[in-house]
Amino acid sequence: MTKNAKPYSGRNYPLLGNIDSPENLNTFSIDQLRQLAEECRSYLIDMVAENGGHFGSSLGVVELTVALHHVYNTPVDKIIWDVGHQAYIHKILTGRRDLMQSNRRYNGIAGFPKMTESPHDAFGTGHASTSISAAAGMAAARDLAGGREKVVAVIGDGSMTGGMAFEAMNHLGDLKSDMLVILNDNQMAISPSTGGLKDYLVNLSLNKTYNKLRQFIWNSVSLFDNQLGDTAKTMLRKLEDGIKASLTPGAFFEALGFRYFGPIDGHDMEQLVTALREIRALPNPKLLHIVTCKGKGFAPAEEHQSEWHASSGGFDRETGKPLKAKKAIQPPKYQEVFGQALVEIARNDPKVVGITAAMPSGTSLDIFQQAFPDRFFDVGIAEQHAVTFAAGMATRGFKPVCAIYSTFLQRAYDQLIHDVALQNQHVIFAIDRAGLVGEDGPTHHGAFDLSYLQPVPNMLIMAPADEQELRDMLYTALVIHKGPAAIRYPRGNATGMEIRNAFHAIEPGRGVITREGSGVGLLAIGTMVQHAIDAAEELSAEGIEPMVANMRFLKPVDRELVRSVAEQCDTIVIIEENSRIGGLGSTVTELLSEEGYHGHVLRLGLPDEFVTHGSMQELYRLTGLDKSGIAQAVRESYNAKETETYDSTKSMSRAERLA
Amino acid sequence: MTKNAKPYSGRNYPLLGNIDSPENLNTFSIDQLRQLAEECRSYLIDMVAENGGHFGSSLGVVELTVALHHVYNTPVDKIIWDVGHQAYIHKILTGRRDLMQSNRRYNGIAGFPKMTESPHDAFGTGHASTSISAAAGMAAARDLAGGREKVVAVIGDGSMTGGMAFEAMNHLGDLKSDMLVILNDNQMAISPSTGGLKDYLVNLSLNKTYNKLRQFIWNSVSLFDNQLGDTAKTMLRKLEDGIKASLTPGAFFEALGFRYFGPIDGHDMEQLVTALREIRALPNPKLLHIVTCKGKGFAPAEEHQSEWHASSGGFDRETGKPLKAKKAIQPPKYQEVFGQALVEIARNDPKVVGITAAMPSGTSLDIFQQAFPDRFFDVGIAEQHAVTFAAGMATRGFKPVCAIYSTFLQRAYDQLIHDVALQNQHVIFAIDRAGLVGEDGPTHHGAFDLSYLQPVPNMLIMAPADEQELRDMLYTALVIHKGPAAIRYPRGNATGMEIRNAFHAIEPGRGVITREGSGVGLLAIGTMVQHAIDAAEELSAEGIEPMVANMRFLKPVDRELVRSVAEQCDTIVIIEENSRIGGLGSTVTELLSEEGYHGHVLRLGLPDEFVTHGSMQELYRLTGLDKSGIAQAVRESYNAKETETYDSTKSMSRAERLA
Repeated sequence: MTKNAKPYSGRNYPLLGNIDSPENLNTFSIDQLRQLAEECRSYLIDMVAENGGHFGSSLGVVELTVALHHVYNTPVDKIIWDVGHQAYIHKILTGRRDLMQSNRRYNGIAGFPKMTESPHDAFGTGHASTSISAAAGMAAARDLAGGREKVVAVIGDGSMTGGMAFEAMNHLGDLKSDMLVILNDNQMAISPSTGGLKDYLVNLSLNKTYNKLRQFIWNSVSLFDNQLGDTAKTMLRKLEDGIKASLTPGAFFEALGFRYFGPIDGHDMEQLVTALREIRALPNPKLLHIVTCKGKGFAPAEEHQSEWHASSGGFDRETGKPLKAKKAIQPPKYQEVFGQALVEIARNDPKVVGITAAMPSGTSLDIFQQAFPDRFFDVGIAEQHAVTFAAGMATRGFKPVCAIYSTFLQRAYDQLIHDVALQNQHVIFAIDRAGLVGEDGPTHHGAFDLSYLQPVPNMLIMAPADEQELRDMLYTALVIHKGPAAIRYPRGNATGMEIRNAFHAIEPGRGVITREGSGVGLLAIGTMVQHAIDAAEELSAEGIEPMVANMRFLKPVDRELVRSVAEQCDTIVIIEENSRIGGLGSTVTELLSEEGYHGHVLRLGLPDEFVTHGSMQELYRLTGLDKSGIAQAVRESYNAKETETYDSTKSMSRAERLA
Repeated sequence: MTKNAKPYSGRNYPLLGNIDSPENLNTFSIDQLRQLAEECRSYLIDMVAENGGHFGSSLGVVELTVALHHVYNTPVDKIIWDVGHQAYIHKILTGRRDLMQSNRRYNGIAGFPKMTESPHDAFGTGHASTSISAAAGMAAARDLAGGREKVVAVIGDGSMTGGMAFEAMNHLGDLKSDMLVILNDNQMAISPSTGGLKDYLVNLSLNKTYNKLRQFIWNSVSLFDNQLGDTAKTMLRKLEDGIKASLTPGAFFEALGFRYFGPIDGHDMEQLVTALREIRALPNPKLLHIVTCKGKGFAPAEEHQSEWHASSGGFDRETGKPLKAKKAIQPPKYQEVFGQALVEIARNDPKVVGITAAMPSGTSLDIFQQAFPDRFFDVGIAEQHAVTFAAGMATRGFKPVCAIYSTFLQRAYDQLIHDVALQNQHVIFAIDRAGLVGEDGPTHHGAFDLSYLQPVPNMLIMAPADEQELRDMLYTALVIHKGPAAIRYPRGNATGMEIRNAFHAIEPGRGVITREGSGVGLLAIGTMVQHAIDAAEELSAEGIEPMVANMRFLKPVDRELVRSVAEQCDTIVIIEENSRIGGLGSTVTELLSEEGYHGHVLRLGLPDEFVTHGSMQELYRLTGLDKSGIAQAVRESYNAKETETYDSTKSMSRAERLA
C-alpha cells in the first residue's frame, strides 16, 4: 500500500472495502477478524493523517470494536460508547466508512456517536461517564418490554472516575438487569487518570499481588498434600475454594453487584471474541475488564499518548512527522494566557491553588502544575467533587482556581450554588471553551454559562475581550475580589496583542467604551467585542458610526455605561457568544426597560437551538455572530420601526439550523 | 423526669445542662459519656416533641456525636456532617443547646450546619454527598499549610450512593491525606437506600461470610500446626497474613485507597471511643464503618423510620402519639396530586415509567410505585444517573417521569442538557419543591429552576396555578407533547378545589386571563397567580382594577397574551416564585421591548440573594411575594413615572435579608 492511496480504496482494504454493514462480520473467522482489525487501523491512520480528528482512543479499541460487531448484532443490540472519541472504528464499520473524510466538518458526520446519524449509534455521547446510565435505561426498557436485545456500555478507566458511572453501576447492581460494561483500561484518560481506583486497576492488570499470592497458595497446598491426612485435605480444598472466591480480583465491582471478568488483553482478538461470546450468554450485570494501549499500532501515538489524543492531520503516517512546515508562529491560546497568568499571580500569593477535572493540558493548568506541583490538584473526571473540594479549601483560606470547560461546569452547577455561592466562598471559576468550540459540536459548545451563572447570588461574572483583559480579570478575581467569581473565555487563539507585564485591577461592574460613535450602540462582551468593532468599521463605510462598548462584566452589569449609551443612541444592539436567553441581552434589556428607554433594542447571541459542528468561521456565519452577520443585523435594525429579536437563523433551512 | 419539664432545664440534664462547649467532654469517662448521650437523646426527643424538626437521623448518631466531640477537638479539628439532618446533637453540644427551640424558625438557628452560625460548623450542608469532597479540600489545605488538625466526614449509607462521594474517595486515595470518613450505616436513607453497594454493606455488617471464613482459616491453621515442619509453618504464617489482607471486609473501600475499619456498633460508646482514638493516630485516608439504628431510643421512630425522618412536633414523647387531635382535613399536597394523576395516566399508557432519586415518599412517587411496582425506579441519591437513565429508557419508546426537587435537579443539569434536550428525548421532569420551601431554608429553596431551564433548547416549561392545572399539565406533557418537558410545582398543600376526573390537554404556550381589569396587568405563573388575584382584590378597594393573567408556560411564552395585556395596560407587573433573574420577568420584558411597549414594567420574584429559612408566610413577606407585598409594589409602580425593578427587600436591614 502506498502512502497516498485513497484510504477508502477497495484495493487496499480487501475486507473493509466490502463492509457496508456490521452484519458482514458475523461469519468472519478469527483470522479474518484480525485482518479486518488491521485494515481498520490502517484506514484510521490514513484518515487522520489526512483529515485530523480524535485518534489515540480509537486506535486502542480497534480489536474490541471488530469483536463487538462480530459477537453482537447492532442496531438490534445496543452499544453505547462513553465520551465517543473512540467510536471512529464503529462508524467505519456501520455504513459510514466513505463519509469519514467529512468527519467533524460542517454538514459532515459528527466526531461523536449521534442518534440521528445512524441507527447503530444507540446513544449520543460527548461528555464522560454517561454510558452506563444510558445503557441501564435501555436494559430496564428491554426488561419491561420483554425484549431480548443485548446492551453494552464501553467506558474508559478515566470516565470510570466520574461519579455518575458509579451511580449507574450501583443502581444496576440493584436492578440485576442483563447488561455488559466493558472497562477499557488504558490507564490513561486524556491525561493520565488519577485516583485510588487507578492504582487498584493497575494492580489488577499487572496481576502482580494477585497472581503471586494465588501461586503461593497453590504451591502451599501441593506441599501440604504429602503431609496431611484426609480430613485436613478436605478442609484445605474447602479453604482453597474460599480463597479463590475471596481473591476475585474485581472485588470492587463485585461489591456493586457486578460479575467481574478479566483482565484480558484488549488487542488479542481470540481472547476478546471468546470472552464476549461467553459473557453474552450470562444473565445480570457483568463487567469485562480489558487492557489496551492508547494509540496502538501507531508508534508515535503509543509513545506520546496525551499529545496524540487528537490530531489536526497533515502528518506522515509512518513517522508521525508533519508533512508541511508549521505555519508561522500563532498567537498564544487563551488557555495558555490563563495558565501563564495564574503562575505569575501565584508566585506572589502562596494561597493560590489550581484544580482541574482531568484536563491539565486542555486547560493549560499544566503550566501551573509544573511551577507549583504541590498546589496543583487533578481530581479525575469529577467536576462535582472538584468544585466542592475547592469550596473546602477556600474555607481554610486558600484561593482555589477551578479551570473547567463551560459545558463540563454544567456537571457542577449544584455544587457551585450550594457549596460555593451560598457560603460565599472565594473560589474562582476559569471557564474555558465558553461560546462556540467548532468541530466538537453541540455537546461541547459553551452556550449556556452566562445564563446559568447569572441568577446565582454572590457571583462576579466576567468575560475578557482579549488576553490582556483575561490576565487582569484573573488578577482582579484573585487579588481584589472576595467571594465567588467566574471568568469565561473562548477556545482557540488570543489576539496576539502585546501584553504588559504588570497586572491592573479592573473595577468590578465597570465596562468601557472601545469605539466612539452615535446613533447605534453596540454593547458586547467577551469575544463579541472585536466582532462588534469590526462590524462597526464595516458600517462606517455606509455612514453608520456605531459606538461600541466592552461590557466586561455580566454581573454586576455596568448600569451607568448602559445608561450613557442609551442617551446617545436610538438603537442598542447587545451581542454575546452565549444563548440569547438569560444572558447579557436579557439583563441589558431589563435595564433599558427600567430606564424607560424607547429606542430599538436588539439581542444577538446563540439561537435557541443546539448549534451543529463545523469550523468557527462557518458557525459564526450560521449564527450571525460574524462581522457581516452583526453588521447586517444592525443595518436592518437601524432602519426598522420597532425593536425586535433579530432571528439571524430565519433565512436558513431547518435542516441547516439544527444540530 | 416529668414529661413537661423544660427540656433545657439543668435539673433534668445534670451533665448536658453544664456543657457550653465541646471542650467540656474531653475529660469525661466512658460512663459519663454514656450518661451524656442518654441526656442528649432525651433532650432531643423533648425538643422535637415540642417543636418538630428532623429527628430519626440525629437519634441514630447520639453516641457517635458524643464520642467524636470527646476524641476530637472542634473547632480546630473539622467535622463535616453530610446532608446535616443528623447534626442536632452536634449543635446541642457546641453552644447552641438553649437555642434549639428556635430551630428552623425565622431568625432562629438553621436545621442544617451553617458556617456563619458557629465555628464548630466546619461546612454548611443540606444536599447529600458533599461531605467527603469538602473534607478532602480541608485536608489538602491543612497539608499545604503544614497544619495538624484532623478532618472527619460523617456520611450515611444513602449519601454514599451519590456519585460525588465516590469521586471524592477516589481522589483521596490518590492524595493520601490524613482524613477519616465515618460511614454511618443505618441501611436507610430517607427511604430505604438502593443499589448494589447496599447489599454489600449489609453483608459486611452481618459479618456472616467474612467471619465464618476467617474462623475456618484460623481453625485450620491451628490444626495444621501440630502436623507441620518449620518451613511449612512459616509458609502458613505468610499465607495467613496474605489471607488476612485479602479477606479485609472493606475491599470496596480499600480499592479506592482507604484503610477500612469496622463494622462496629455505633451505639456502643466504648467501642466508638476506642476505635476513634486508635484511628485518630493513623495517617492517610481511613473509613470507619459503624452500624446504627435510625430513631434509636425512641420506639416509634425505630419502628417507622421513614415516617419519623422528621416531625412537625406536638407528640407524646413516650408513645409518639399526637397530643392534639389532627387539624381538619387538609387539601391534598401538590406532590400527592402529581402522584395520583401519574397513576391515572399510566393506567392507559403502559409506556409511562416513574423515576426517583431516593425520594419516593417526598415526591409521592410511592403512589405510583404501589400501583406499578415494575415501572417504578428508585436509583438512590443519584440525580445525574436518574436523568440519563431516563434518557436511555426514552430512546426505547418509554415515557419516563423524573420526579426530583428543584434544587436537587441542579445536580443533573448537564444530563438534562446533554442527554435529554440535545437528543430531544421525551422525558418529563416533575420538579417538586419549586420556589420557597420554608423551614429547610436556602439549601432547599427552589429559586433557580425557571432560570436555568429557560435557555435549554427543546424544553417545554410550565408551572400550574392549582392542582387541576398540575394534572392537565402532566397529561399534556405525557400524552400531547413530544420531547422534554418540565412542570414545576411547590411544596405544600394545593388549593383544595374540586377536581374533574377527565384530563384536558393545555395548548403549549397558551396562557389565560384569570381576572379582567384594566390599567395594570399582572402576569403571573404558578403559585403567584393566586397571590396576584388576591393582590388585585386588595387593590380593587382602592379603585385599581388589575387584569391578572395566568401565563402557565414559561417556554414557549404566550406572546399574544402579553401583547393583548400590553395593549390594555400602561403598567405591567410580572410575578414569579423564582429568581428575578432569567425567568418569566426577563422573557416578558424582552417581549415588551420587542413590541415597543412604553409603559411601566415591574418584575417581582425572589431577590438576588439566598433567602433564609422560616415559615412560608414569613418568607413571602420578606421577599414581597405575599398579597400585600405585591399590592404595595403595584400601588407604587402605578403611580411611578418610570419603570424600575422594585426592590422589595430594600427596606430590610442587610442582616434580615441575608440567609
